Amino acid sequence: MHRTKVKVVEEALDANNTIAAANRADFDRAGVTVINFMSAPGAGKTTLLERVVADLPGVRVGVLEGDVQGSMDADRLATLHIPVTQINTDAGFGGECHLDANMVRSAIPSLPLEDIDLLIVENVGNLVCPAEFRIGEDARVMVTAVTEGVDKPLKYPLMFRACELVVVNKIDLLPYVDVDLDHLLYNVDQVHPDVERMVLSAKTGEGVGAWRRWLTRIAAREQAVLAG
Amino acid sequence: MHRTKVKVVEEALDANNTIAAANRADFDRAGVTVINFMSAPGAGKTTLLERVVADLPGVRVGVLEGDVQGSMDADRLATLHIPVTQINTDAGFGGECHLDANMVRSAIPSLPLEDIDLLIVENVGNLVCPAEFRIGEDARVMVTAVTEGVDKPLKYPLMFRACELVVVNKIDLLPYVDVDLDHLLYNVDQVHPDVERMVLSAKTGEGVGAWRRWLTRIAAREQAVLAG
Repeated sequence: MHRTKVKVVEEALDANNTIAAANRADFDRAGVTVINFMSAPGAGKTTLLERVVADLPGVRVGVLEGDVQGSMDADRLATLHIPVTQINTDAGFGGECHLDANMVRSAIPSLPLEDIDLLIVENVGNLVCPAEFRIGEDARVMVTAVTEGVDKPLKYPLMFRACELVVVNKIDLLPYVDVDLDHLLYNVDQVHPDVERMVLSAKTGEGVGAWRRWLTRIAAREQAVLAG
Repeated sequence: MHRTKVKVVEEALDANNTIAAANRADFDRAGVTVINFMSAPGAGKTTLLERVVADLPGVRVGVLEGDVQGSMDADRLATLHIPVTQINTDAGFGGECHLDANMVRSAIPSLPLEDIDLLIVENVGNLVCPAEFRIGEDARVMVTAVTEGVDKPLKYPLMFRACELVVVNKIDLLPYVDVDLDHLLYNVDQVHPDVERMVLSAKTGEGVGAWRRWLTRIAAREQAVLAG
């Protein structure tokens, strides 16, 4: 019996990664650096953005807000006179607990890419699934608040491993909670040794200068790479 | 042309609900009341259990712990000499951000149902997906910490709507955060008017008596229903 030889495709392309690469190409063409900004609910992502987005030297910032529903955070940031776009994951996308590359792709026509240098994508508050989906970003940043306890790196290791920067927020509350900052940072090291980290309070402003400098630096770095 | 008549099944059974009903039947047969206990990461679920599980008058408690990986919370509770079973959602279940009915079903052979009256299922820390999956529980309880801010009911309404009790934790931190408790409770009312709620501090013990009484009452209520 004679059979034609069958070609076997061994690795199916992951649809999310395919779309993330397309997003990344669009962002690169526009010269826009993209940050995927993640945390548990209430860790202080929006307050951390309010602190800096209108005040990054030489960097024009835009924000893409991801929420299950509503636009409360987008409304807060829009008062700072920066461009803000909202994605709701409920109606069109089915109540998803994270952003994925296709949702971000759906938003690209609504983003003023020609008018910004840095796009910060504030993901849905969740320490699990957002870490599993690339969206076409240059870097991933996660925020953990000291009020969440010292054990979160060990309980949600993928999130802590997936990011290039860990921001420890709400250090103004350290005197009032049973949380040892050194123990928390030790647990970060257990799952992601040597990851860059900063310790700050979005409320008091302590340490926020380092956050502002990090964002400014990564936007400049990507500009340099794109300029070749 | 002659055709036989085709029967059309209009409503496909939802697999999760089918399995949840089977779990519920097993729990009812064993006379065990089941609580699905949910919150964002770090809201204080485990501490709230540590406060009461060894000390509910006339109620023998068991705990089923759901985590992406590890058994840190289960280990904490096991020191209280109650039966604790761990489900990890990563290896066998693929890194899920929530428990579903089938995961709980997989754990039933490991649960000492004959030796307990109340099973508390501590879900994965997440304010989105756990609310979408019944597991065969009698009641759902969610915890929100005041440190998460006043806006969480509006941003994660399904979780606040899906539960029979909202526990507001960490009120000992109210003097140190920009959170108005009345505003938070007003937002709870916006999405779930008249839901039972309690305001407490697992750390100081303030208000924990109401939590202990609520668990004792619901266990007794279900016993009365089952006794017919």
